[in-house]
Amino acid sequence: MSRIRLGMVGGGSDAFIGAVHRIASRIDDHYELVAGALSSTPERSKESGAALGLDPARTYGSFDEMAEAEAARDDGIEAVSIVTPNHMHYPAAQAFLSRGIHVICDKPLTATDDHADAMAKAVADSDALFVLTHNYTGYPMIRQARDMVAAGTLGQIRIVQMEYPQDWMMGSPERDGVKQAEWRTDPERSGAGGAIGDIGTHAFNLGGFVTGLTATELAADLHSFGKGRVLDDNAHIMLRFDGGARGMLWCSQVAAGCENGLRLRIYGEKGGLEWGQEDPNYLWFTPQGESTRRITRNGPGASEASTSVSRIPPGHPEGYLEGFANIYTEAAAAIRAVQGGESRDAVMGKLPGIRAGLEGMAFIRACVASSKGNATWTKI
Amino acid sequence: MSRIRLGMVGGGSDAFIGAVHRIASRIDDHYELVAGALSSTPERSKESGAALGLDPARTYGSFDEMAEAEAARDDGIEAVSIVTPNHMHYPAAQAFLSRGIHVICDKPLTATDDHADAMAKAVADSDALFVLTHNYTGYPMIRQARDMVAAGTLGQIRIVQMEYPQDWMMGSPERDGVKQAEWRTDPERSGAGGAIGDIGTHAFNLGGFVTGLTATELAADLHSFGKGRVLDDNAHIMLRFDGGARGMLWCSQVAAGCENGLRLRIYGEKGGLEWGQEDPNYLWFTPQGESTRRITRNGPGASEASTSVSRIPPGHPEGYLEGFANIYTEAAAAIRAVQGGESRDAVMGKLPGIRAGLEGMAFIRACVASSKGNATWTKI
Amino acid sequence: MSRIRLGMVGGGSDAFIGAVHRIASRIDDHYELVAGALSSTPERSKESGAALGLDPARTYGSFDEMAEAEAARDDGIEAVSIVTPNHMHYPAAQAFLSRGIHVICDKPLTATDDHADAMAKAVADSDALFVLTHNYTGYPMIRQARDMVAAGTLGQIRIVQMEYPQDWMMGSPERDGVKQAEWRTDPERSGAGGAIGDIGTHAFNLGGFVTGLTATELAADLHSFGKGRVLDDNAHIMLRFDGGARGMLWCSQVAAGCENGLRLRIYGEKGGLEWGQEDPNYLWFTPQGESTRRITRNGPGASEASTSVSRIPPGHPEGYLEGFANIYTEAAAAIRAVQGGESRDAVMGKLPGIRAGLEGMAFIRACVASSKGNATWTKI
Amino acid sequence: MSRIRLGMVGGGSDAFIGAVHRIASRIDDHYELVAGALSSTPERSKESGAALGLDPARTYGSFDEMAEAEAARDDGIEAVSIVTPNHMHYPAAQAFLSRGIHVICDKPLTATDDHADAMAKAVADSDALFVLTHNYTGYPMIRQARDMVAAGTLGQIRIVQMEYPQDWMMGSPERDGVKQAEWRTDPERSGAGGAIGDIGTHAFNLGGFVTGLTATELAADLHSFGKGRVLDDNAHIMLRFDGGARGMLWCSQVAAGCENGLRLRIYGEKGGLEWGQEDPNYLWFTPQGESTRRITRNGPGASEASTSVSRIPPGHPEGYLEGFANIYTEAAAAIRAVQGGESRDAVMGKLPGIRAGLEGMAFIRACVASSKGNATWTKI
Repeated sequence: MSRIRLGMVGGGSDAFIGAVHRIASRIDDHYELVAGALSSTPERSKESGAALGLDPARTYGSFDEMAEAEAARDDGIEAVSIVTPNHMHYPAAQAFLSRGIHVICDKPLTATDDHADAMAKAVADSDALFVLTHNYTGYPMIRQARDMVAAGTLGQIRIVQMEYPQDWMMGSPERDGVKQAEWRTDPERSGAGGAIGDIGTHAFNLGGFVTGLTATELAADLHSFGKGRVLDDNAHIMLRFDGGARGMLWCSQVAAGCENGLRLRIYGEKGGLEWGQEDPNYLWFTPQGESTRRITRNGPGASEASTSVSRIPPGHPEGYLEGFANIYTEAAAAIRAVQGGESRDAVMGKLPGIRAGLEGMAFIRACVASSKGNATWTKI
Repeated sequence: MSRIRLGMVGGGSDAFIGAVHRIASRIDDHYELVAGALSSTPERSKESGAALGLDPARTYGSFDEMAEAEAARDDGIEAVSIVTPNHMHYPAAQAFLSRGIHVICDKPLTATDDHADAMAKAVADSDALFVLTHNYTGYPMIRQARDMVAAGTLGQIRIVQMEYPQDWMMGSPERDGVKQAEWRTDPERSGAGGAIGDIGTHAFNLGGFVTGLTATELAADLHSFGKGRVLDDNAHIMLRFDGGARGMLWCSQVAAGCENGLRLRIYGEKGGLEWGQEDPNYLWFTPQGESTRRITRNGPGASEASTSVSRIPPGHPEGYLEGFANIYTEAAAAIRAVQGGESRDAVMGKLPGIRAGLEGMAFIRACVASSKGNATWTKI
Repeated sequence: MSRIRLGMVGGGSDAFIGAVHRIASRIDDHYELVAGALSSTPERSKESGAALGLDPARTYGSFDEMAEAEAARDDGIEAVSIVTPNHMHYPAAQAFLSRGIHVICDKPLTATDDHADAMAKAVADSDALFVLTHNYTGYPMIRQARDMVAAGTLGQIRIVQMEYPQDWMMGSPERDGVKQAEWRTDPERSGAGGAIGDIGTHAFNLGGFVTGLTATELAADLHSFGKGRVLDDNAHIMLRFDGGARGMLWCSQVAAGCENGLRLRIYGEKGGLEWGQEDPNYLWFTPQGESTRRITRNGPGASEASTSVSRIPPGHPEGYLEGFANIYTEAAAAIRAVQGGESRDAVMGKLPGIRAGLEGMAFIRACVASSKGNATWTKI
Repeated sequence: MSRIRLGMVGGGSDAFIGAVHRIASRIDDHYELVAGALSSTPERSKESGAALGLDPARTYGSFDEMAEAEAARDDGIEAVSIVTPNHMHYPAAQAFLSRGIHVICDKPLTATDDHADAMAKAVADSDALFVLTHNYTGYPMIRQARDMVAAGTLGQIRIVQMEYPQDWMMGSPERDGVKQAEWRTDPERSGAGGAIGDIGTHAFNLGGFVTGLTATELAADLHSFGKGRVLDDNAHIMLRFDGGARGMLWCSQVAAGCENGLRLRIYGEKGGLEWGQEDPNYLWFTPQGESTRRITRNGPGASEASTSVSRIPPGHPEGYLEGFANIYTEAAAAIRAVQGGESRDAVMGKLPGIRAGLEGMAFIRACVASSKGNATWTKI
């Protein structure tokens, strides 16, 4: 089985997330990176391409150039990873989707609602796949949790507690030259959401992914603690779900001692589950009236939903990159299935796509609107 | 130093909290239980008194009888513990306060706002002390946290995350003969708050105790998941504090796997703190930009605020009863100081009293009002 | 039921363990401290007695004086707690045992083997009870573990890992005026064992208590890291048990970061158990081929062996003092049973007594002998 | 920079460790797997090669065939990974070393001492690099620990506690068709060591790697609990190090609830360190007399020794595969340096090689000899 030829937009030398996507694409050996428009300036794009060992002829100055050139080659890229700041997601994705090249795009979907609508249209108009890297859905024990909820092990879900605190935006990194902070605090590039867009969407997506529930309305209290910061760096949110479940979501970028404290706690009529991203190989399960069990990845009690996306035995930890790789690996399977003639809708499986992206945008939009209305309940 | 003569109202044989108060009063040897009106029925009161080895002559059929008789004795009780369901707090306390007998009362203050007002008046009209057993404030590492915040170690406080989940009200214990559940789910005896009154007030009180901040308004979404249950068994609350801090509070009685998961996380401009009641001997402190430290009770870095209420070396855990005993021990010191002529206001120190009680009632009232108004922001 | 009249030998103002015994004796209200010989100097004994509120007439200058005087009183003490340095255990205990006064004695049994033999004789010659405060056996989850092993839940035991590291003897506290360190590093007062006597015996006792196995031989490598220290402050020990189980025991007083890290891990043919003293309310149980369960004190899956020695609900932690109190409470029941005419042998139940004391002495003796023989296997 | 052309010996479809090596070689993109002799039977080797997408012409029936053919190609492999059972390590390695092809070999070095000697000679006679995958040395926080010890942060090392318990050999997996268990329990293929060879060597290697100390003698008590098992499945070992440090090592394959519980605790005059493989992103550091700190990978307080082998921010866990990849990545740097003309000895850096392999063999030999002599002290 030959590797899928992959291109990348963004992800030059100082971009953390580009390297993550590249490693994730390599772990299970389904992709070969062969082309890139790695930076917004052609020179830096060339440099980054050289550092990665790309063919200079396939290191492009812009994504448009790349889309056109690659589409014209017999051995052109079959898929592209888009890892730019948010405001570039749509134009980049559109260029490839319109040429039938599959897109694997970072989240949130776009910076603006207009772009989101346009993205939806671009996806609808294309035959190519659109995968959004809500990478935390790739953690095996998240799959296990989703499977247990779907199997009714918890009974009807009542409470969904989501949180994602960080601390790296304490102080003013955006004024101290930290590029990652610069664009994330700039509404032009990031959109209307700060913490809610960057990490809140992850927590929100994960709550829905695991429970299978749709959040219908929310009340949000957004706040910017950083001096001169326009976008939220802390958000307190209450949620209501279809079927009567209630939830809370807290995300923050200024909570000292929190690194990537994404955590999910779900309680139903018959039991409860807890999972934390920083110790991701364990799922804590309590059936009502019994002792809490620690289910380990690939260990006793782990179901096919998690073992099928695990690589190594229990007790040998898999981490963030392996979870991310699961998205890439499932995307590869989907791409090959479509190439083999299956219908696009039939192959997405558990992969997050345009729908998850639009839900994330709706979440951001509802948060901002609710908060402006003094945390009034707002439909999502 | 002779022991303080103590009476008890409520706390008969199947009442968990009565035994807790008795142990707490004994641990540091400042009290002698000499009288009781331990049950609402005279026969059961007698039986319980006999089981505790009380003088039958001082085992009373009602608190009124006890207040009158004890006040008339030369060796009558100096203080009384009130550990009844909430609706009895006021009438019982009033009977003793009006006779100059110090009162140590379980929380929340009362079941109704009318009673709360009357209680405030009864306290104001008496020279006796009124102590409310917000016992979690007695944990040494909570004292340490309060001390660190007051010393400015965290800088200005920004975020206050409080939670207190339990699971013992899953199913319908109130219909299965569990007395603890019966009165807690009955508005007549418990008041307008279910989980918010029983445990939410603890979390709320603790947040204020540690940060020194006043919560000014809240938005609450209360819910009853238990079949046929009138009072809330789950509450999601957003809060705003004087000075700009924001907070969240979650309490639940139906979260499988949670026993007494009271937890406090506080974040300021310069650092963060985490503490959990189930592992109470440790305080996790992160100064901005440094590694997280685990401060242990009586260990390195513990300040006088915590060591002064610790009994044993670090690594030998103290627990719930010792924290509770700290309230009793500080109450004993206050009682002796008042007996020695000091003014009542001067001796309360860190002890929770009528003010904490009224704040708790205001919290319950605001939660209920906000929730009825669809989680609209409500002044506390 | 009236309280048992209790005396105390040792335990003056700067002795940590005296206060622990007093609190432990009060928690369940079975004792009243009425007499004491609290210090080796009469003046300090008087002062300490006054501080504790003892009747000056019953504050004695020596244990001999106390034994004689109390035995002569109609309301004399029924039991005595001995909390002196090790070398005083025997003479003090003998004075009371010979007068029919029950003895509750700190561990290890004595400082020397001669004293141990004499103690055994004194116990045999008396009708009074002799209880040794191997207090860790009082922790509820230790009872749970013992119960599970006895019930065969783990199958035949194969491996017993015991450890008890501390760090408070780093540096030279014995030369810096720390009294606790002075006598513990002095062979005259402590005996031939340093860490092995002070804390190693606890770990050894606990391994035997939980598994019900007898250690038959050991190989020990003792070492003194502290400058000029004569007794061991670190010990590495391998053990073999009746029935084929193997074990290891590590104790240390110079392991930075360890406070009272007593920990027990037991593995059998069918399952494993883990327990740590610093988080004592949880027992971790893994049945072969299944997920690990966290059994909580008084929670689901806790058996009568642990619930019967628990006071409060799961999630409200009990600690070291409550575990210690369980020994006192069971001693009270035994004393009352003997007073009621039952035979001494019938009432000890799970209480550690002279046999546990002699086993501890044999352990120390074997460790020292083995280590002198370069860790040769030595019968216990 | 083009990828290093890599071959593999062993690692066919049901071999867990082959897949691990392949992923580890890909993560940082320094290798391209181009040839293999993946199984001991030519047919299965072909099948496995096809499954991996290898050129059928470079899928060989035996390592000899592969060594000869690849050495003859202009584009032949530059390096080979050997992931067979232990008894094949030497013959396979020899075939490639003798042809100047770099070898990355699984541990332990060989199954027999004769093979170990021969391997040492083969390495000495070759110009090629020999890297032994003591992969746990690649964990960033192990690098951090080594760096801190080397910098004197802990002062002189006193105590080294190593352990590696597992439970997957409970019961009789070797008779239930588990291939991993079959060869590991067979002295012909595994050598004289069971658990000590398979996992004990890892713990032993890690203790030496982090402390920089040489273990000089040991006393070992090996045991086989599994029915009919010849090799040890549990080992208790005491160790003495150059410079006076003492240590313990426990490894087991029958400890229920332990998955890959490799753990290292190191104590010096001035501080202590703890690290566990199952939660590898954290290093717990206690300076004497101060609070314990949790140092996180790539977080505050992490030094270049660890950050240089980290890929992603703190709080996003890296795991076993990333640690393994660090060995491959450093091997790639070493290979390129040698290819660039540097001397073999100058390029090994922290990479484990023939010396670590011989030390591991000496450890196994000493354990077996000591245990046969009833745990007598034996030079390593």
